[in-house]
Amino acid sequence: MRHPSYECWLQYEPVKNSGRANEYRSWCARLVVSEQGEVLNTAVDELRSGIRRMLGLRPAIAAELGPSKQIVIGTAASVLLTPDEREEASDLPEDGYFMRTVSDERGERLVIAGRAERGVLYGCFHLLRFLALGEETEELHIIETPKHRLRMINHWDNMDGSVERGYAGQSIFFDQNKFVADRGRIADYARLLASVGINGLTINNVNVHEVESKLIDDSFLNDVADVAGTFRLYGIQLYLSANYAAPITIGGLTTADPLDPSVGAWWKGAAANVYAHIPDFGGFVVKADSEHRPGPFTYGRDHAEGANMLAEALEPYGGVVIWHCFVYNCMQNWRDRKTDRARAAYDHFKPLDGKFKDNVILQIKNGPMDFQVREPVSPLFGSMDRTRHMMEFQLTQEYTGQQRHLCYLVPQWKEALDFDTYAKGEGTPVKSLIAGITAVSNIGNDDNWTGHLLAQANLYGFGRISWNSELSAEGIADEWARMTFGAEPKVAETVLDMLVRSWRIYENYTAPLGVGWMVNPGHHYGPNVDGYEYSLWGTYHYADCVGIGVDRTRETGTAYSQQYFEPNASMYDTLETCPDELLLFFHHVPYTHALRSGETVIQHIYNTHFDGAKQAEGLVAVWRQLEGLMDESRFAEVLERLQEQAEHAKEWRDIINSYFLRKSGISDKLGRMIY
Amino acid sequence: MRHPSYECWLQYEPVKNSGRANEYRSWCARLVVSEQGEVLNTAVDELRSGIRRMLGLRPAIAAELGPSKQIVIGTAASVLLTPDEREEASDLPEDGYFMRTVSDERGERLVIAGRAERGVLYGCFHLLRFLALGEETEELHIIETPKHRLRMINHWDNMDGSVERGYAGQSIFFDQNKFVADRGRIADYARLLASVGINGLTINNVNVHEVESKLIDDSFLNDVADVAGTFRLYGIQLYLSANYAAPITIGGLTTADPLDPSVGAWWKGAAANVYAHIPDFGGFVVKADSEHRPGPFTYGRDHAEGANMLAEALEPYGGVVIWHCFVYNCMQNWRDRKTDRARAAYDHFKPLDGKFKDNVILQIKNGPMDFQVREPVSPLFGSMDRTRHMMEFQLTQEYTGQQRHLCYLVPQWKEALDFDTYAKGEGTPVKSLIAGITAVSNIGNDDNWTGHLLAQANLYGFGRISWNSELSAEGIADEWARMTFGAEPKVAETVLDMLVRSWRIYENYTAPLGVGWMVNPGHHYGPNVDGYEYSLWGTYHYADCVGIGVDRTRETGTAYSQQYFEPNASMYDTLETCPDELLLFFHHVPYTHALRSGETVIQHIYNTHFDGAKQAEGLVAVWRQLEGLMDESRFAEVLERLQEQAEHAKEWRDIINSYFLRKSGISDKLGRMIY
Repeated sequence: MRHPSYECWLQYEPVKNSGRANEYRSWCARLVVSEQGEVLNTAVDELRSGIRRMLGLRPAIAAELGPSKQIVIGTAASVLLTPDEREEASDLPEDGYFMRTVSDERGERLVIAGRAERGVLYGCFHLLRFLALGEETEELHIIETPKHRLRMINHWDNMDGSVERGYAGQSIFFDQNKFVADRGRIADYARLLASVGINGLTINNVNVHEVESKLIDDSFLNDVADVAGTFRLYGIQLYLSANYAAPITIGGLTTADPLDPSVGAWWKGAAANVYAHIPDFGGFVVKADSEHRPGPFTYGRDHAEGANMLAEALEPYGGVVIWHCFVYNCMQNWRDRKTDRARAAYDHFKPLDGKFKDNVILQIKNGPMDFQVREPVSPLFGSMDRTRHMMEFQLTQEYTGQQRHLCYLVPQWKEALDFDTYAKGEGTPVKSLIAGITAVSNIGNDDNWTGHLLAQANLYGFGRISWNSELSAEGIADEWARMTFGAEPKVAETVLDMLVRSWRIYENYTAPLGVGWMVNPGHHYGPNVDGYEYSLWGTYHYADCVGIGVDRTRETGTAYSQQYFEPNASMYDTLETCPDELLLFFHHVPYTHALRSGETVIQHIYNTHFDGAKQAEGLVAVWRQLEGLMDESRFAEVLERLQEQAEHAKEWRDIINSYFLRKSGISDKLGRMIY
Repeated sequence: MRHPSYECWLQYEPVKNSGRANEYRSWCARLVVSEQGEVLNTAVDELRSGIRRMLGLRPAIAAELGPSKQIVIGTAASVLLTPDEREEASDLPEDGYFMRTVSDERGERLVIAGRAERGVLYGCFHLLRFLALGEETEELHIIETPKHRLRMINHWDNMDGSVERGYAGQSIFFDQNKFVADRGRIADYARLLASVGINGLTINNVNVHEVESKLIDDSFLNDVADVAGTFRLYGIQLYLSANYAAPITIGGLTTADPLDPSVGAWWKGAAANVYAHIPDFGGFVVKADSEHRPGPFTYGRDHAEGANMLAEALEPYGGVVIWHCFVYNCMQNWRDRKTDRARAAYDHFKPLDGKFKDNVILQIKNGPMDFQVREPVSPLFGSMDRTRHMMEFQLTQEYTGQQRHLCYLVPQWKEALDFDTYAKGEGTPVKSLIAGITAVSNIGNDDNWTGHLLAQANLYGFGRISWNSELSAEGIADEWARMTFGAEPKVAETVLDMLVRSWRIYENYTAPLGVGWMVNPGHHYGPNVDGYEYSLWGTYHYADCVGIGVDRTRETGTAYSQQYFEPNASMYDTLETCPDELLLFFHHVPYTHALRSGETVIQHIYNTHFDGAKQAEGLVAVWRQLEGLMDESRFAEVLERLQEQAEHAKEWRDIINSYFLRKSGISDKLGRMIY
């Protein structure tokens, strides 16, 4: 058996409660399935193997219903279902399923029925989760439908094996400019993703370099198709990040102008070739005119013209173009306080609303900047009525501790999804507006996938929340902790508590009050208050000896606040109503400004940094109490990361506090040591 | 013919002044030499080729004196010399020579005589310089003896081809963990070095990594010997940087403890093997216990024990150990203001004075920190009466603009060499105490050797000053400019003026008043005021909203000032007498402190930064006036660098000024734009 940290949340340990085990065995001795299908077969295999591991039982597989208890699985077309069940299953949305215990003249059965095979697979994983968590299976009556059609993962893997912003080893897909020979790990990954409902992914970095440009041509398409096949078994569609300049780079054309007929023709040919290899190919993900990537701006075209040309090429096959909105001036003059990077996505894309083809989906990062520990929600959400768009989160903890610090991000994502845009009046949360959710992967070829074992919770949580954004962050953390570490209450409770507090802890000792950044340039790890202050990236805090913050108000600032609907626009714009946690994102204030909490800004900085470092140390202490309650190796690997975090948090604390004491000249009123 | 920027100062353009040319031709038509010898042959070849190029004349080579004018070259043993001349030559120190016109019964001749072959070579290069500069050759009477026995260059080249702190391309010695196949460039380099009197060099980085550790064993010794042979032709001795842990790394021992007999035996064997390949091998250069390099500290031994063990191994062959004094705690806690990196070399080595064997030479950087634009002279100079030591400069412009900015460093070196240590009372300058001078190379495989063509002046100047530290920085710059660009007065005058102003210009727009650093970490290029402020490297400025500087005084600071002899100790220690240019190196003062110049510190910062950026722009303007007065390509390549410098100087100006305006809250009294 694999090492437990490799198994993630699919530990499938033997069920210890013997009453419960007997209850489960009564259902699981017999699996009835009458259909064949790639994904359905996967579902059956997963169910058999999970049952075997948890119950020590090899279920019999039958094609017909029997008299005693049994599990029945099938799609809407299955003859094993009653006519009513078939109709109910057909009426489910794509990927939906129901799971129900039934007892009638046809026998006693637990029915897992999906509209299609993928729903069945999800239902089987659902049942396995039930068993792992020790849930009651009598009188089940569950109907599950995904809240979001697209539930994707984006890999930023390069073919040389490196992972941009990867903190968990090298790529599991590529090495030395080839695909890895052993595809076993890819299959294991597909299984993890499917178990939490992910149905799409890109395998290559959205910054598409030279070699990777060839993923869409014959250089690599056989390999891509092979990997797509591995994911297909788990109901996951493969997409590729495409280089907008591919017609030049690999096509031999002299232009990539989207309005040049030869360019459109080239992409049509490229798409035809891709679909000849991968009939269910998802589409292209494109980051154009962003951070030195090529794009339509080179030719005086706008993003709609750029995206639509690609969309036309994919349209005949049902493919989509997923188009990044992360477009801003990354050569900004730091002296210029009028230009505001936060405004950029809205300013670029809002005027294009309605001009995109139906198979274009805009991909919008959760905040207007770049995955900071705290940002407001991007004002593009809600502002584009006539354009399909999706949410982008970042699992990989680029700015949130790089999987050396614990930072459970589901609460952050929940806030973004629940944010009321007021686009159609009160009650228009982001989650009601989006076509899907995607996230930048946090996995690599480290033994435990995510570097920090507890960072697996972010992958798990992302899958769960992209399926159902109504789930609570706590509930997800609880599920994950129990599935990962078993039902020992002290472990589950402790891990749950650590996870739910971790985002705030990390925020406490890093950049204060929503201003962001303050990291070392380039690698983005560790404190550096002025790291990006005099740079061209548009990410400033403007701290001087009097105050700090970015004035994004209407009257005196960049008027970014006005990209929101009312009442959000006024709420952010007004010093008195702006939430403390975003104060410095919207306002430049003196250090002596009193927050809504009653503290001054400077004292808040000191307090949170002392608190945060102490809390990070506390994580070590509570983790130590779990020694002996789990396998030694997982205990030790997490402990090592938490200790590193605690040390590093002190570095954060002292550098940030020293910076502001030196700059403001205002002492900590509690007289703690600042250097 | 090679491109002029490749030829450096050995352009040997035809002499234009026809009177002078005729004068020269009268001497140069006949070369008389009666001896054979590798270096002597080089001298003859150089003289012939230089004469041919400058005078369009192929000199006849004769073994006996003739009746008409001629050039006679020979060592103290030459039968061509008169008995008096032979005696005079014998009495010269090593490498010395005389050059003299004689007219007597034996004929009219220009005699170039060295004590040994190397002196002859230097004499021939001296004559060629005379011809190139159009000097009078009648009634010559020159005796030249080097002020310093060791005149070395250290390469920080790695065998993968990279050059640590290299700004002029890749290594000319190594590529892909092998020696380069084509040795032609190495010979051209040897010639350049010999032309300015360099007589030793290391070819590999003093941070000796894994592959490079094998340079001293059979893996590479044949190649090393071959390269040593190339340098030998030009009178240059080869040394190698050695890995102190080599007994472990390549020797298979379990220890590198200098007092372990097996370690001493291993090094003796290694030395014997090196000398079997290279009989005139110079010795080992060692950086031990410094910046994570292995060393004797690992075994609880001191540096004398560490160095002496190596010295014993080399002693039978006349080799030396050159031992770096760059030893300090590079894992310092930035919170700790008591530990002072500036103190480290003195604190480590002063107590060991007298304990080193005679063939150990300590290598001491000019300043106590690390090649900053401005530092005091290291107090180790003068403090070690009973230990041979040498001066280390840095040609490669790590902290002085990386050969993208113009920074002629000879004036800085002159200040260091002329610094009166008062070690034996007034009049004990550094230059009177040292056994030699070495410098970190600034060359690479760029077409023009040094990246910035004008940075060739630093290599030239280093050679000249290491031969004769009495030469003036201006005089050297003038020689270099005229030899490089020809005698066109406007070019030579302009270049001279640019060179001599360049150090101060660079200092003006970078770190103020001797405090140093303020660069981006890692690569050390470009402004970053807090770049090293909260780091472990021991390099801080301690700026807060009130003041700035490092208190190194006796009463309230680290007492570094007391490592100097009086009156220097008091001069630095006392606020009123400390030179402005080093004020912040020794004192922490308020921004409002009045300098000896009368300006406040803050206003000085603003003034020098505005001035410096303007001066950098001025360099572009004066250079432009030279268009058409030299070949287009050299004009263009220098212009491009100067333009980059001017732009980058503005970035320095604005970032430094903004940092201090924001921090101090004190406006520029001239009301200039600060952001």
